[in-house]
Amino acid sequence: MLFHVQMDVQIPHSLDPEVAAQLIAKEKAYSQELQRSGKWRHIWRIVGEYANYSIFDVEDNAELHQLLSNLPLYPFMKISVTPLCRHPSSVREDDS
Amino acid sequence: MLFHVQMDVQIPHSLDPEVAAQLIAKEKAYSQELQRSGKWRHIWRIVGEYANYSIFDVEDNAELHQLLSNLPLYPFMKISVTPLCRHPSSVREDDS
Amino acid sequence: MLFHVQMDVQIPHSLDPEVAAQLIAKEKAYSQELQRSGKWRHIWRIVGEYANYSIFDVEDNAELHQLLSNLPLYPFMKISVTPLCRHPSSVREDDS
Amino acid sequence: MLFHVQMDVQIPHSLDPEVAAQLIAKEKAYSQELQRSGKWRHIWRIVGEYANYSIFDVEDNAELHQLLSNLPLYPFMKISVTPLCRHPSSVREDDS
Amino acid sequence: MLFHVQMDVQIPHSLDPEVAAQLIAKEKAYSQELQRSGKWRHIWRIVGEYANYSIFDVEDNAELHQLLSNLPLYPFMKISVTPLCRHPSSVREDDS
Amino acid sequence: MLFHVQMDVQIPHSLDPEVAAQLIAKEKAYSQELQRSGKWRHIWRIVGEYANYSIFDVEDNAELHQLLSNLPLYPFMKISVTPLCRHPSSVREDDS
Amino acid sequence: MLFHVQMDVQIPHSLDPEVAAQLIAKEKAYSQELQRSGKWRHIWRIVGEYANYSIFDVEDNAELHQLLSNLPLYPFMKISVTPLCRHPSSVREDDS
Amino acid sequence: MLFHVQMDVQIPHSLDPEVAAQLIAKEKAYSQELQRSGKWRHIWRIVGEYANYSIFDVEDNAELHQLLSNLPLYPFMKISVTPLCRHPSSVREDDS
Amino acid sequence: MLFHVQMDVQIPHSLDPEVAAQLIAKEKAYSQELQRSGKWRHIWRIVGEYANYSIFDVEDNAELHQLLSNLPLYPFMKISVTPLCRHPSSVREDDS
Amino acid sequence: MLFHVQMDVQIPHSLDPEVAAQLIAKEKAYSQELQRSGKWRHIWRIVGEYANYSIFDVEDNAELHQLLSNLPLYPFMKISVTPLCRHPSSVREDDS
Repeated sequence: MLFHVQMDVQIPHSLDPEVAAQLIAKEKAYSQELQRSGKWRHIWRIVGEYANYSIFDVEDNAELHQLLSNLPLYPFMKISVTPLCRHPSSVREDDS
Repeated sequence: MLFHVQMDVQIPHSLDPEVAAQLIAKEKAYSQELQRSGKWRHIWRIVGEYANYSIFDVEDNAELHQLLSNLPLYPFMKISVTPLCRHPSSVREDDS
Repeated sequence: MLFHVQMDVQIPHSLDPEVAAQLIAKEKAYSQELQRSGKWRHIWRIVGEYANYSIFDVEDNAELHQLLSNLPLYPFMKISVTPLCRHPSSVREDDS
Repeated sequence: MLFHVQMDVQIPHSLDPEVAAQLIAKEKAYSQELQRSGKWRHIWRIVGEYANYSIFDVEDNAELHQLLSNLPLYPFMKISVTPLCRHPSSVREDDS
Repeated sequence: MLFHVQMDVQIPHSLDPEVAAQLIAKEKAYSQELQRSGKWRHIWRIVGEYANYSIFDVEDNAELHQLLSNLPLYPFMKISVTPLCRHPSSVREDDS
Repeated sequence: MLFHVQMDVQIPHSLDPEVAAQLIAKEKAYSQELQRSGKWRHIWRIVGEYANYSIFDVEDNAELHQLLSNLPLYPFMKISVTPLCRHPSSVREDDS
Repeated sequence: MLFHVQMDVQIPHSLDPEVAAQLIAKEKAYSQELQRSGKWRHIWRIVGEYANYSIFDVEDNAELHQLLSNLPLYPFMKISVTPLCRHPSSVREDDS
Repeated sequence: MLFHVQMDVQIPHSLDPEVAAQLIAKEKAYSQELQRSGKWRHIWRIVGEYANYSIFDVEDNAELHQLLSNLPLYPFMKISVTPLCRHPSSVREDDS
Repeated sequence: MLFHVQMDVQIPHSLDPEVAAQLIAKEKAYSQELQRSGKWRHIWRIVGEYANYSIFDVEDNAELHQLLSNLPLYPFMKISVTPLCRHPSSVREDDS
Repeated sequence: MLFHVQMDVQIPHSLDPEVAAQLIAKEKAYSQELQRSGKWRHIWRIVGEYANYSIFDVEDNAELHQLLSNLPLYPFMKISVTPLCRHPSSVREDDS
């Protein structure tokens, strides 16, 4: 089941740069692990912003919330979730 | 080069239903042709709305505008385009 | 799996009142059938508005879109869907 | 009498984590006590957000304000209240 | 129990002026009857707009919705309801 | 001459609680004095918010600004003023 | 007593051009009469828009509403009123 | 050439009150000097807000930016500029 | 003197296509004439929208309003004007 | 390939003025280098704001993101990117 997720990151300027760097490294590792597992299907950078559009493929709403709320940068993100379903014009079997 | 496109369709209630049906059929054929060519990578229905999120893979801005402005339902759409690039955490080689 | 759905109805003043009355009657029957099946858990009127907040319990996103897009008043509604999950403070076993 | 309440929580990053943890524990206890009393009928987590949709069943506006303003996290919440009434299509006797 | 109600009226230019005049006359009579009964405590014109701020004193949410949805101009209004309660600084015994 | 005033209070979390308590006590005394003088006709708490809707009865715009800018909590308020006049349907002689 | 008024005009495309021309001519005459009387102190065109910013000098809110609601184009305007008072830095005696 | 300028001032609560008082005094002197020169034609306080509407009469865009960016409170202001021109209904020769 | 202008075009579906085509042809001729004169420096299509960003180089506000209000499609446009001046980092002598 | 970029700068008041001055100097040098290379075609100051409208001419989305994210003031900017293409009415060969 697919969801469209927009993440806007806003790390406070007052955060210790070393702590920030560690969080960002953990975020990357966590994201890549989920991508490899197939849960996090796509992630694209929005040009000019510290933000991304992502596509998640999960069992249900609860799993999505668990994955998102465990993001290392979650406390510094504004997240917006949109449920998706197969478009009647889609030619791809796996896009639903 | 990838772009995120949101399309909201609002066909006026006054439009002749037969004309509307023809436009929708043409829209579907046009969309599927572009999907098969690889230009229109993804299209997902937004749940509960006459709207979609799509990913386009085009040569440049001009090609994207040409593809979008030729949509049979273009006069009845509100379209919003966001340029994308590869996310530094992405594990997919082709998501840029 | 639960979803929060807001529906705002705007029937055009130009619509034939008889047609409108028929649509509204069909809408009521359709809604009550879904409520009795357990798919449409709750529906509340927003005071002073031709609008409702509803809770749906469905298998997945696709089923929710199918239920919503079959609403007799769907062409005259603005719908906004929010995925829900169990709140860690909830004492109800079935609210997820 | 039912009310729809949206609560968005924003605990400042500067708050002592221990103080925050205590507030969150108190919040949970307070919420569960009200849920068991029947005043706080439902609480659902909004997926991907530190926020909830809730349904309150209270005697009147004054009681609702008293319950909300006593929330331990009240100083860190943005709350939006919508009065509800029975929907003419509802099949549930107690949803009003 | 008090509620703050904002009503914005937008009568379509295509409405027969005679029908509009009848609706406006009925609206006035209906409003004055409710004002005399004490249900509609206050009504003020917003300067420069076809809109009003009103204060209603009703038994519960259901009564408020019934009063509002019976407004002769209801189909042409955008209504926004805010529940009120006694302010801790108020010196008026009846303002709650 | 009547004005509708919405006041949203946002006391910064960093403010010394004792200073805040003193300001709130002064605010209450100031408000009650103006209410007794008839200048501040009504004040209602908006349910679930640290905010109020008020009705002021003043000589002119200048007097209203003087009263508002002297509020002890003025530096922490967002204030929105709407001029009112007698509604043609009003049955109250003093609501203008 | 001064008020800042923004007027946005939106004459429907379906209005008979001759009727529109008559309304616009009446509007101009009405505006100039009020300007000469001193009630309508200033009127400026907003560049690129069918809109104006104006300054009115009236006895009270009621007079302002009467002047505005008698505008020949009033049914086709969106009006927004802001009460003004003398700025403490102003060097003009008559700007209040 | 006239411009409509809205200035919203938001001095941070953390600013040293003495520094703030000096800035405000400089702001007043600067404003009055420009008013006397004819560059800053009008300044009005918006009732209930730390904000003003102003009219500037300048040679060109560059001069307006220079005047605004030299305001002592500029770093604490949100400024919005609207170009004006003579309204076809204006009876004042100098309002353009 | 430079201005940034955003134009959003919304030709009503009810407009006779032949009339629309004539207006669009006139619009193109008018635009190209102004571009050749140097008044309309740039015009770019916004991808996916019936809209453009343009840069005008005019004598003053009045000239800009005259040029814009004479656009053949002006009655079907939403226009937003922003005054520009030379950026201190600009290396181009003529960009002001 | 052209892009319209809006940059709003908001340097926190708490930033060391010397650090801010260094960043601003670096920003200017970086901007001028890109302007001279032809990548950053235009930059205009928005009158009355610490903001600019710019036009970039880049190979693709990725290059644009790289240029923007390397801006010395990037952490203090809100950036909004709009893809452009040649307008059918344009007379300039190089505006695409």
